[in-house]
Amino acid sequence: MDKGYVDLKYAKLDTDRERRTGFPEVVFCSRKTDEALVEIYRKLVERDGRAFGTRASAEQADLIRKEFPGAEYDPVSRLLKVEAQRTDGTGQTGEKTDVIKQAGKTKLPYAVVCSAGTADLPVAEEAAGTMEFFGVRVERLYDVGVSGIHRLLDREELLQGAAVVVAVAGMEGALASVIGGLVSCPVVAVPTSVGYGAAFEGLSALLTMINSCANGISVVNIDNGYGAGYIAAAICRQIERFLKS
Amino acid sequence: MDKGYVDLKYAKLDTDRERRTGFPEVVFCSRKTDEALVEIYRKLVERDGRAFGTRASAEQADLIRKEFPGAEYDPVSRLLKVEAQRTDGTGQTGEKTDVIKQAGKTKLPYAVVCSAGTADLPVAEEAAGTMEFFGVRVERLYDVGVSGIHRLLDREELLQGAAVVVAVAGMEGALASVIGGLVSCPVVAVPTSVGYGAAFEGLSALLTMINSCANGISVVNIDNGYGAGYIAAAICRQIERFLKS
Amino acid sequence: MDKGYVDLKYAKLDTDRERRTGFPEVVFCSRKTDEALVEIYRKLVERDGRAFGTRASAEQADLIRKEFPGAEYDPVSRLLKVEAQRTDGTGQTGEKTDVIKQAGKTKLPYAVVCSAGTADLPVAEEAAGTMEFFGVRVERLYDVGVSGIHRLLDREELLQGAAVVVAVAGMEGALASVIGGLVSCPVVAVPTSVGYGAAFEGLSALLTMINSCANGISVVNIDNGYGAGYIAAAICRQIERFLKS
Amino acid sequence: MDKGYVDLKYAKLDTDRERRTGFPEVVFCSRKTDEALVEIYRKLVERDGRAFGTRASAEQADLIRKEFPGAEYDPVSRLLKVEAQRTDGTGQTGEKTDVIKQAGKTKLPYAVVCSAGTADLPVAEEAAGTMEFFGVRVERLYDVGVSGIHRLLDREELLQGAAVVVAVAGMEGALASVIGGLVSCPVVAVPTSVGYGAAFEGLSALLTMINSCANGISVVNIDNGYGAGYIAAAICRQIERFLKS
Amino acid sequence: MDKGYVDLKYAKLDTDRERRTGFPEVVFCSRKTDEALVEIYRKLVERDGRAFGTRASAEQADLIRKEFPGAEYDPVSRLLKVEAQRTDGTGQTGEKTDVIKQAGKTKLPYAVVCSAGTADLPVAEEAAGTMEFFGVRVERLYDVGVSGIHRLLDREELLQGAAVVVAVAGMEGALASVIGGLVSCPVVAVPTSVGYGAAFEGLSALLTMINSCANGISVVNIDNGYGAGYIAAAICRQIERFLKS
Amino acid sequence: MDKGYVDLKYAKLDTDRERRTGFPEVVFCSRKTDEALVEIYRKLVERDGRAFGTRASAEQADLIRKEFPGAEYDPVSRLLKVEAQRTDGTGQTGEKTDVIKQAGKTKLPYAVVCSAGTADLPVAEEAAGTMEFFGVRVERLYDVGVSGIHRLLDREELLQGAAVVVAVAGMEGALASVIGGLVSCPVVAVPTSVGYGAAFEGLSALLTMINSCANGISVVNIDNGYGAGYIAAAICRQIERFLKS
Amino acid sequence: MDKGYVDLKYAKLDTDRERRTGFPEVVFCSRKTDEALVEIYRKLVERDGRAFGTRASAEQADLIRKEFPGAEYDPVSRLLKVEAQRTDGTGQTGEKTDVIKQAGKTKLPYAVVCSAGTADLPVAEEAAGTMEFFGVRVERLYDVGVSGIHRLLDREELLQGAAVVVAVAGMEGALASVIGGLVSCPVVAVPTSVGYGAAFEGLSALLTMINSCANGISVVNIDNGYGAGYIAAAICRQIERFLKS
Amino acid sequence: MDKGYVDLKYAKLDTDRERRTGFPEVVFCSRKTDEALVEIYRKLVERDGRAFGTRASAEQADLIRKEFPGAEYDPVSRLLKVEAQRTDGTGQTGEKTDVIKQAGKTKLPYAVVCSAGTADLPVAEEAAGTMEFFGVRVERLYDVGVSGIHRLLDREELLQGAAVVVAVAGMEGALASVIGGLVSCPVVAVPTSVGYGAAFEGLSALLTMINSCANGISVVNIDNGYGAGYIAAAICRQIERFLKS
Repeated sequence: MDKGYVDLKYAKLDTDRERRTGFPEVVFCSRKTDEALVEIYRKLVERDGRAFGTRASAEQADLIRKEFPGAEYDPVSRLLKVEAQRTDGTGQTGEKTDVIKQAGKTKLPYAVVCSAGTADLPVAEEAAGTMEFFGVRVERLYDVGVSGIHRLLDREELLQGAAVVVAVAGMEGALASVIGGLVSCPVVAVPTSVGYGAAFEGLSALLTMINSCANGISVVNIDNGYGAGYIAAAICRQIERFLKS
Repeated sequence: MDKGYVDLKYAKLDTDRERRTGFPEVVFCSRKTDEALVEIYRKLVERDGRAFGTRASAEQADLIRKEFPGAEYDPVSRLLKVEAQRTDGTGQTGEKTDVIKQAGKTKLPYAVVCSAGTADLPVAEEAAGTMEFFGVRVERLYDVGVSGIHRLLDREELLQGAAVVVAVAGMEGALASVIGGLVSCPVVAVPTSVGYGAAFEGLSALLTMINSCANGISVVNIDNGYGAGYIAAAICRQIERFLKS
Repeated sequence: MDKGYVDLKYAKLDTDRERRTGFPEVVFCSRKTDEALVEIYRKLVERDGRAFGTRASAEQADLIRKEFPGAEYDPVSRLLKVEAQRTDGTGQTGEKTDVIKQAGKTKLPYAVVCSAGTADLPVAEEAAGTMEFFGVRVERLYDVGVSGIHRLLDREELLQGAAVVVAVAGMEGALASVIGGLVSCPVVAVPTSVGYGAAFEGLSALLTMINSCANGISVVNIDNGYGAGYIAAAICRQIERFLKS
Repeated sequence: MDKGYVDLKYAKLDTDRERRTGFPEVVFCSRKTDEALVEIYRKLVERDGRAFGTRASAEQADLIRKEFPGAEYDPVSRLLKVEAQRTDGTGQTGEKTDVIKQAGKTKLPYAVVCSAGTADLPVAEEAAGTMEFFGVRVERLYDVGVSGIHRLLDREELLQGAAVVVAVAGMEGALASVIGGLVSCPVVAVPTSVGYGAAFEGLSALLTMINSCANGISVVNIDNGYGAGYIAAAICRQIERFLKS
Repeated sequence: MDKGYVDLKYAKLDTDRERRTGFPEVVFCSRKTDEALVEIYRKLVERDGRAFGTRASAEQADLIRKEFPGAEYDPVSRLLKVEAQRTDGTGQTGEKTDVIKQAGKTKLPYAVVCSAGTADLPVAEEAAGTMEFFGVRVERLYDVGVSGIHRLLDREELLQGAAVVVAVAGMEGALASVIGGLVSCPVVAVPTSVGYGAAFEGLSALLTMINSCANGISVVNIDNGYGAGYIAAAICRQIERFLKS
Repeated sequence: MDKGYVDLKYAKLDTDRERRTGFPEVVFCSRKTDEALVEIYRKLVERDGRAFGTRASAEQADLIRKEFPGAEYDPVSRLLKVEAQRTDGTGQTGEKTDVIKQAGKTKLPYAVVCSAGTADLPVAEEAAGTMEFFGVRVERLYDVGVSGIHRLLDREELLQGAAVVVAVAGMEGALASVIGGLVSCPVVAVPTSVGYGAAFEGLSALLTMINSCANGISVVNIDNGYGAGYIAAAICRQIERFLKS
Repeated sequence: MDKGYVDLKYAKLDTDRERRTGFPEVVFCSRKTDEALVEIYRKLVERDGRAFGTRASAEQADLIRKEFPGAEYDPVSRLLKVEAQRTDGTGQTGEKTDVIKQAGKTKLPYAVVCSAGTADLPVAEEAAGTMEFFGVRVERLYDVGVSGIHRLLDREELLQGAAVVVAVAGMEGALASVIGGLVSCPVVAVPTSVGYGAAFEGLSALLTMINSCANGISVVNIDNGYGAGYIAAAICRQIERFLKS
Repeated sequence: MDKGYVDLKYAKLDTDRERRTGFPEVVFCSRKTDEALVEIYRKLVERDGRAFGTRASAEQADLIRKEFPGAEYDPVSRLLKVEAQRTDGTGQTGEKTDVIKQAGKTKLPYAVVCSAGTADLPVAEEAAGTMEFFGVRVERLYDVGVSGIHRLLDREELLQGAAVVVAVAGMEGALASVIGGLVSCPVVAVPTSVGYGAAFEGLSALLTMINSCANGISVVNIDNGYGAGYIAAAICRQIERFLKS
């Protein structure tokens, strides 16, 4: 009988997840032992033809590359990707997630990832890379913090065309509020731990975003670029789902 | 020249908002003086044919009803609605927001609002009423907190069909995580101030939701049912936008 | 011998303050007994020809008006002013503070007070009224919160001409950062207790402002409009001092 | 005269503890100097025939093994055990704690240790190992976090048969609430420091568990697997005591 | 088909709870409307022959007494009890919970409720009354705070005979630690909101208890006497269960 | 068309800033990659003839010195300065900022930087060096904490002549309040992370300064010497602006 | 047998306290029922010839005056005193505490109570009245906050002669640090809840005092004037004890 | 003219301190540069014949020993002492502080330092060593935490004879309250950072001690053994002062 999970000694792999949520399992690489990491990547590639991990160190990337020479690792976002069955070099997405692109619509949904400063890049890229893995088209708009607001306003059109915006900011995190006032789509705000002193490792930015005076903003955990990317992808999936219905 | 706002003595009405965000202005009734409240409702009804307010007291509702006898007030959600041009009694939505229903699709998007306990009802209803005002079909699933998890699991199918789920919970706020593990759509989590002692007026639930181990969950401010409803509506609007494109 | 203070039973009036700081004593009316309040106003008017109090209730205003029928009270800012020797009706400032206006300069310094929302008005007006009492010309720019950023940008010229800007905002307090990026003068930021839930009675706005990514911003206590007005006046006093030197 | 303690230079060994509490002394190895650690293990083995320590490093384990070659060390739970008089290899418990097993009852009490994720293992194993040292039968149910609730529900029968459940979870810590709704026995919840950002080193999970909407849940300190194991053992001891009475 | 709950408009009564947890539903009276409260009491009495509520106001007690003249209300603990089928006046427990008393054992389990000061009484009595409703014998030991430790030590024997101790304390909450060092049974600690200043409405006592240097202590929410009583009863139920097995 | 910024891959250089704020860009060196740092210094020197960075490490200073042998680095304040076009060795200021000195006034504005203890020096020097870079005359008054108040009072005249005072203090941060009571000019308070235990990395000093009973004090982020120096310079710029008008 | 306490229903009167601590019991009037309060005063007067209570309301004072017409109540400090056996009107102290005055020394110990502002008076007077009840000579030095430091320095001699100083301050609480730098005796610091915004009901002042850079300062709970007075009296008692030895 | 301080470049040595406070300067060694440390020790020994430092590292001790071969360093308390003029080996105190011993009294004052656990030793020894340096007789009572309360009660007589008790405890810090209930002398409580999880680096113990239900307890900063020792010495100095008067 299929219980919907595989019972290993110390873990229960949730094999039912994709049926329930439409998204495959993603590996949180941090703190995993070498043995566990390799085994998990092997199983996922075996079953799904690919595997995707977050918070991977350079050492872990080397480890996985020994097993899968084609593995891709980005040291900024720390994403570690294996796509065993990819036979071409153009797109990031496999069979399951390219529905939107096949739909033949002229106006396809895209997400915009904004970051306030250059130190927010790792989190912004984690969000962007996650969305791209899940088949979402991403536009990047970096270093557009509110201390030079004209840099953001200059791209108002790009923002207003988005299906979802991910706003990544540390310090006081005011970027999300300004964007929230400019667009009609949902804004997923990611506070980062960038800052010092009373930034309290991202708490200040989190509070700013939770209390935003603008509408349409919801918040994920500090530095959780992956989480924001997942939500943005989930929103695009719903668009795709109804386009197909 | 149209500056995009009307400059009153103490306020600048943002007349450009609907162009930018697709959503009309909503009145936050709490703390407003009687004179200001009546004037704002008058101007909105005059311009848009309707007005919608949150956090209205029973006294404020009486006040507005004197001006607009057809005004509807719900003492649970504290929403206060005037729809001057509504000529029928069936739907909640006016001309601008009924696009999805007209689209002729068989599977139309709907949102589910879940609440953990009965004390969370005012917040849940604020979310539900907001979505309905913005033209979104809403299914309610109340009192399904995790201490009796079978009540939630019994409605798994309803949840999995939703375009977005709003999860409202106070105390420890665990409901959002369980729902996050069951669905593919985005989950907007609303912590409530229900609880006592170390619940710290909703802070505990907020932290629970921000730290959720499940994917797809983003969070709004404590008791911010309106904010969650707005985001859910914004997601449905994106679906509608691409269905129309 | 003059000790620089008058030793009452429960208080030591700092008669040396004006020599040291250039500013007369200001009465914090809140919590004062009726007898104490009247006595203090009497002594100040006797000595200085005027008296100025903050956080006065309507009842306290009535009390002082019985003694000084010309007393002025503003229920929004809760400022309570007696200017016994004013013989004309034009200016707010007495002999000691009108130096700038006499200086014959064409470009005189002025301060701008900005507020994010209408609920921030009492704090903004406390700041504005304090500056006016100290002889500073004030321009008001209210309801220019970042969710409709065009309302602020529309007045960029006014802001850039200011000698100092007081930025008053609750909720997430992002207004100060945006202003900080637009002007060359110092910005005094005042967080307000406006908001709910995770606004934590102004703590969120305070953290936002302390962590601002923009330069030139310093912060006073939550709802401390008087304190911000004092600082802005102190800055204008320094300009005046060197113009006279 | 027996004062109930031995007065060393810097410590007072509580020789009266076992009489009062029924449990022998347990060594908290962390921060102890090498000399102190070896001396304490020697004294305890001398007096009781065994010794048990928590939070031991691998280096400390090597040190104790030099003195007691049969010492057992588990690098996951960091428990360090010496049982000098054990003459067989089957059970973990010595003479004093095997009462329940001798009672000849068919339904003997057992504890279940649940963990939400694999990163919670060290804490879960510290709890499990502590209970086993105190003679309690333990069932492990790991990686059953609420984002895949079916993994937990699949073992409902095992949970409902337990005399006590120890629920170990980090991040948002929702596991304890779900278990609390499923069982009749007491649940001892252990928040862990697993998580990042607003998890605040376990504070978020602690608040979740303290505010649980489910009944029967009490909470110990963050990462305090030993403490939870002790309480679970104390509950089983009470069962044993009345079975013997 | 029995879904294990009854679906009312705004609530889902968990009719499966007693099967799962062995404990009937308890009514949290606070915030309930009059209609809802009366209806819930009626349904519970109808089904179970009794009903038990916590945090009831005197007004709510009057309301229920109109319906059930024999309802008992204690203004200190704010517990509100209806036991329709009780035909004798001696014990507090009905048919389902008197198993331990029937077991014919000479040494029956009892719980001790300790409180540090007289201001902690409402919480202590809530715990005691809850346990008595669930059929547990309770001994009260009140006003034994650590500033006069001899009052506690004088009753050491009573404490050491208990199956479980509930320790209720506000201010610095040190009582739990001292008790933890004296007994072998589990100690359930209840921080109270008694205190002022840096007691922070019970947070200080909660932290004290969570960090206790003594073993065997677990903690419930601030002022949660009911929760502690429930856990103590659950422990006694486990003893009873194995005595019957 | 000039957009007011240069769009690099990961950054948008705000070339419009000096027009808006009157201050050139300052480089926050911390966390920058070697390549990025060198490139930014090159571009700034190329455009402005100088560059100024904060929070530079000794390694970064070596790096910049390879490119610009005349670069000046102060290991205490960690300021890293390149002034390519400076042809004399006397002043720190270039063409744009020497206006006040040229004004021919006898009483020129100066700032005083006070520090409470010797451990506050790095922050105090960051403030002082920043002001000097922006052309402000600075007087240093170090180690004048309130535990030996005579050291501060001895220099009352110097303080009272200042145009602005920067007060730098850790631990309890009381210095700012005492200074605030002595001077008429604005006081910019900088809490530092000096202290231990309940100093909470500067939070205690920040709260002290925000709550000061003295007038005229505003606060910047913990350890933000640069920010305080910027504000002090902005105040002096306003004086200069009106002297020139 | 004398157990050292009297076992009432809900309280255990600590009759051994005076033997152990040298101080009689003091009644914390707040929250006591009328019956309990009257009974406690009766018992104390009966046994000791006097009774002393803190935090008494005006209503409670009236109640006690009906029973003891000579009872003294101070509405500022809220102290409520009965001294049944006092036969003269000069001193505050009875038979047990007048030892120091009888010692015939020329330089007798005295305490100084300082308060920063007039709003701190209730707490300062609670401290002063407590000390006087315990037979300590008290000098009051009120409204000497650091924003006008000359008022404090003017009385340096009085401060330096004290055996102990109680420093009472709200807002930023800097007074204690300045005093600590001036005197050789111990300073007991009392933070008060005076202030607003980020004063957080006294937390800011508490942190300031705990982190003081001056030596000799220890801290009691927010608004705990009684506690500070007790400690100051305990210090004077030790002086008295050795003078008598 | 003697200003009461020596103005070095970065420091102002407070040469007036001993006159004001009766205590010589003590060196806080942590963070000092090698050059600064040696220079300060040299100056102090030159002027006073001795020097005393806290928080010294072993490396700093080696450094000072090169200059003063007789320097004493204790690695537990991290106190570093030079007493150049000591010509005998018996006492720790020099000419200025031996007054009490010369007074010929039979009952001389002594302090007791209590610690809850062995991990609190460094802080307890810092307190004890400080007192001994200041000429106070110290009795040590270590490892008497409340989980084995008999160890403390066994020494009740020693405690009750003390002139002052220093209570050092981490984790939940309950020790201070129990001692406060046993003695008549003042208790100086020192929270330590010993503990983990919700101990929050000593915050929990600090709150416990500040909120103590026992009288006579005041609190110093976390781990501030020196501060507690200073206060205890200041109390003994007052006794000495009046014995001499």
